[in-house]
Amino acid sequence: MSASPYKQLEQEFRRLHAFRGALALLRWDAAVMMPRGSADVRGEQLAALETEHHALLTAPRITRLLDRAQANTQGLADWQIANLHEMRRQRDHAIATPVTLVSRLTKAASRAESRWLEARAQGKFEAFAPYLEEVVHLVRDKAALLGQALNLAPYDALVDEFSPGLTTADIDAMFKALSRRLPSLIREAIAVQETRPLLPLTGKFPAGKQRALAVEVMKSVGFPFERGRLDESEQPFTEGVPGDIRVTTRFDPNDIFSGLLGALHETGHAMYDLGLPQDWRDQPVGRDRGMALEESQSLLIEMMVCRSRPFVRYVQPLLAKHFGASGPEWDVENVYSHLTRVRRGLIRVDADELTYPLHIMLRYELEKQLLSGELAVRDLPEAWSAGMEQRLGIRPTNDVEGCLQDIHWAVGSFGYFPSYALGAVIAAQLYESLRAEVQELDEQLARGEFSGLLGWLRTNVHGLGAKVPVQDLLKGATGKPLSAVSFVRYVEAKYLESTASIESTASSAAA
Amino acid sequence: MSASPYKQLEQEFRRLHAFRGALALLRWDAAVMMPRGSADVRGEQLAALETEHHALLTAPRITRLLDRAQANTQGLADWQIANLHEMRRQRDHAIATPVTLVSRLTKAASRAESRWLEARAQGKFEAFAPYLEEVVHLVRDKAALLGQALNLAPYDALVDEFSPGLTTADIDAMFKALSRRLPSLIREAIAVQETRPLLPLTGKFPAGKQRALAVEVMKSVGFPFERGRLDESEQPFTEGVPGDIRVTTRFDPNDIFSGLLGALHETGHAMYDLGLPQDWRDQPVGRDRGMALEESQSLLIEMMVCRSRPFVRYVQPLLAKHFGASGPEWDVENVYSHLTRVRRGLIRVDADELTYPLHIMLRYELEKQLLSGELAVRDLPEAWSAGMEQRLGIRPTNDVEGCLQDIHWAVGSFGYFPSYALGAVIAAQLYESLRAEVQELDEQLARGEFSGLLGWLRTNVHGLGAKVPVQDLLKGATGKPLSAVSFVRYVEAKYLESTASIESTASSAAA
Repeated sequence: MSASPYKQLEQEFRRLHAFRGALALLRWDAAVMMPRGSADVRGEQLAALETEHHALLTAPRITRLLDRAQANTQGLADWQIANLHEMRRQRDHAIATPVTLVSRLTKAASRAESRWLEARAQGKFEAFAPYLEEVVHLVRDKAALLGQALNLAPYDALVDEFSPGLTTADIDAMFKALSRRLPSLIREAIAVQETRPLLPLTGKFPAGKQRALAVEVMKSVGFPFERGRLDESEQPFTEGVPGDIRVTTRFDPNDIFSGLLGALHETGHAMYDLGLPQDWRDQPVGRDRGMALEESQSLLIEMMVCRSRPFVRYVQPLLAKHFGASGPEWDVENVYSHLTRVRRGLIRVDADELTYPLHIMLRYELEKQLLSGELAVRDLPEAWSAGMEQRLGIRPTNDVEGCLQDIHWAVGSFGYFPSYALGAVIAAQLYESLRAEVQELDEQLARGEFSGLLGWLRTNVHGLGAKVPVQDLLKGATGKPLSAVSFVRYVEAKYLESTASIESTASSAAA
Repeated sequence: MSASPYKQLEQEFRRLHAFRGALALLRWDAAVMMPRGSADVRGEQLAALETEHHALLTAPRITRLLDRAQANTQGLADWQIANLHEMRRQRDHAIATPVTLVSRLTKAASRAESRWLEARAQGKFEAFAPYLEEVVHLVRDKAALLGQALNLAPYDALVDEFSPGLTTADIDAMFKALSRRLPSLIREAIAVQETRPLLPLTGKFPAGKQRALAVEVMKSVGFPFERGRLDESEQPFTEGVPGDIRVTTRFDPNDIFSGLLGALHETGHAMYDLGLPQDWRDQPVGRDRGMALEESQSLLIEMMVCRSRPFVRYVQPLLAKHFGASGPEWDVENVYSHLTRVRRGLIRVDADELTYPLHIMLRYELEKQLLSGELAVRDLPEAWSAGMEQRLGIRPTNDVEGCLQDIHWAVGSFGYFPSYALGAVIAAQLYESLRAEVQELDEQLARGEFSGLLGWLRTNVHGLGAKVPVQDLLKGATGKPLSAVSFVRYVEAKYLESTASIESTASSAAA
C-alpha cells in the first residue's frame, strides 16, 4: 500500500527542509568562517542547492499531490490541513517566478552585493548604481509575475513573501498612526532626557569578556548551547534550523552594550525558532510566521525586555563580575538611561525605538518608488537625503551614511524593510498582553528568570508555528487586530515618564 | 542550437561538484563547529543531499548523454575524453549500488559509528559487535553488486572505489616485498637508535603558540589561508574543494610536534587538492587520482620532507621563536632523532614509517576475512590480538588499543586501509625521482623554501588530476611501475645510517 498523498507530501517537504538547513549552514559559514577568497566557490554551491530546491518544490509531482490531498482532507488533523495550505503557498510563490528569472536575479544580486561593498569602501554610489538598476529591473519583473499569480498588487506580492498575510494597507495604517505621533514624541523625549544627568560609560571592554557575559545572559534566557552557537560576524544575524541555531553578534571594545544587545536581539529570533512545534519541525506549518513576527520576537527581547530597569538590575552585578564595573556611572538609573537614549541619527541599525520607524518609512516609500519607476536609481542619493531631512531633520554628508548603508536592495530584498517596523508594533502589542498576564514579570526579569516570559510567548506565538495567519495569531494572543496603539502607549510611557515616577520605581526597588 | 552532449555533461557534473562541495562543508562543520546536540539534524541534511547527488548522477539522462558523447568524441581534447571516462566511472559506481542499499548502509553506518564511540568509551567490543555485523553484511552485498557491475572481484571493487586502478594483486605484491624486509629492518633500526643518546623534549606547549607555529610553517609550504583554514578537531583531516580547503589538526600541550606534523600531513593533502588543474576544477577529470595517491602526498610532506634534517634545520629557529626552546635537547640531531623514532606500538595513528605498514597488513587481512565470512565479527578481537602479536610481538591489553581503535569499519569503509600503505610506497617512489631532479632540494628545505618540491609535484602529480590511471602517472613521473623497491631503499637509508654518515652530514651542515 502506498502512502497517502498527504504523507507523500510530508516526505517531500522533509527533504526540502533538509535542503534549507544545508543552505542555512552554507550561508552561516560564508559570513562567519569562510576564507575571503572562497566566495565564488560558495556562490556556486548556494546556486546549485537553491536551483535544486526550486526544482524539487515546483515539480509537477508536488502539484499533483497537492491537488489530490486538498481534494480530500478527511482524516487530517487541523495542523495537517494548515500544513497543506502552507505547502501550497510555498509552491505558488516558487512557481510564479520562472527558474531563469530566479537565476538571473541571484547572479545580479551577487554582482550587486560585491559592488555595494566596494561602493561603501570608496563612498561612491555611482559605481554601484548600474548594478542596483539591474536588480531593480529584475525585482520589478518578479513582483509583476508574483502579483499576477497571487492576485496581489506587485509590491504586496513582495511583502507577502517575507510577511505573509500583511499588506500595504496594514503598513500604511501603521505608518499613518506612527507619523502622527512620533515626530513630536521624539522632541518631547529628547527634552525629558536633557533634564537628567548622564554619566559616560567609558572603559575598555575586551571581546573575550563581552562574549563571556553574552553567553551567561543567553543561558539565562534559555538559549541551548548544546544545539546552538554564538559567533562573531560583521553584522549580527541568526541562521540555521531548530536543532542547530547559530547566532552572531559583533563586539566593540569601546562599547559595553552593543555586542550584548546584538546577541540578545538575535537570541529573540533564536528562541522563536527553538519554540516552534517540535513535531512539525520539518514541515512548512512548523516554520515561523514570517519576518514581521520574527522581528517582533527579537525586538521584544532586545528593546522591551532588555532595555528595561528590571533587566538592568539583573545585569548590573554581571557587569561588575565580568568587567569589574563599579562607581556611580554603573547605577541602574544611569545604565538604563544609556540603554534608552533617544538620538536623531543617520544610521538605521544604531537607531533607538522612537526614531527607528522613521528610518523604515523612508525606505518603504523609496523602494515603492524605485519599483514603480517613479524614482530613478540615479536620483536615489538625493531622494534619500531629502527624506532624511524631512523626517529627522538631518542630512547625510555622504552616501555611506545615506543610501549605501543597507545591503537589502543590493541583494534584491525589496518588501523586507516594513517587517522591521511591523515587528516593533507587533512586539508592543504582544508585550502589553504578556505583561498583563504573566504575574510578577519584572521581579522575575530582575532575577534573570525568563521562563515566565518565554512560557507566554511559547503558548501564544512560538508554539503555533505557521498554523494560523498572523492577524489571527495576534487576535488570539492579544484579543485585538494589529494596530499601533499599544506601541504608541508603550513608547509614551517609557520615554515621557516623569521624574516622580522614576523616583517611586527606584524607591520601591530599594525597599 | 542546443549544447553538445559533452557540454551538457560538463554542466551536469558542475552541479554535482557543487553538491559535493556543500556536502564537504556539512561534514567539516559537523567535526569542527557543530554543537553536539545537532547531530541528528545534520544527519538528515547529509542524507538528503547524498540521496539527491546519487539520484542526479544515476539519472537516465546522464546515461543517455554519456552514450551519445562517447559514441562520437571527434573534436574533443584529450582531457575531455578522459573526463568522459571519469564521468562514466562515477556513474557506474553509483548505479551499481541500489539507492535502498546506499540508504540502509548510511543508516547502519551512522548507528554503528555512535555505538563505536560508546564501545570505545566503555572499552567493550561486545556492545558494538552486532552493529558492526550489520555493516559487514551490507558492505558484503555492496561489494558483490559492485564487483558484478565492474567485472572485478568483490574486494577489488571496494578498493577501486577509493583507489581506482589498483587491485589486490598490486597490494599483495607490495605487502610481500614489505613483509620480507620490514620485520628485520625494525629490529636493526631499534638497535641502531639504542646506541645513540636521546634527550627528552619536555615542556608545556600551549595550543595557541602551537597554532601560530603551524600557521607559519604552512604558509612557507604555500598553503593559501585566503582560500583555506586551519582548525582543531578530534582527528586531523582535510575537507573541502579546491578554492575552499579546510585542514584540521589536534594540539597536545605536552607534545610540541604532534599537532604540527598532523597539520603538515593534512597540508600535504591540501596542496595536492590545490594543485589540481584549475580549468577542470569542477569536473571529474579535475579530481584527485584516488586515496592511495592522496595519501602519498600527505606522507611525502609529513614523513619524507618534514621528518628530515633539512626541515629540522628550518624549523629549529621557529621553535626558539614561538616557545623559547633552547638547550642541547633542541639540537638538530636530537630533534631529528625524536621525529624518526621507531617503536613497536599498538596504535596505528601513532606508528612510525617502519611499523606502520604492518598495522595496515593486519587490517587488510582481517577485513578481507570479515567480508568473505572466513572470520566472524565476534572473533575479531582475538584475531586482532593474535595478528598484532605475530607481526609486532605485542598484544593489546584491551579492545580500545586493539580492534576498536579505528573508525573505518564502523562507517563501512572497507577497502580503504590499503591506500595508506600504498601511499607510503608511492610517496617513496615519487620522492626518489623528485630528489634526483630538483637541484639543491635539501638546501631549499633547510631555508623553508618549498617551491622546488611543489613545482615538481605540480608538474608530475597534482596538475594531472584524474587524467591518467595511477599506474601511468607513476610511470610518467618516475619511469617505473609501482613497486616497493624505492620505499625499502628509502627506509634502509634513513633508519640504518651509520654514525659516521651522520657526523659527516652534521659537519658539512656546520661548514
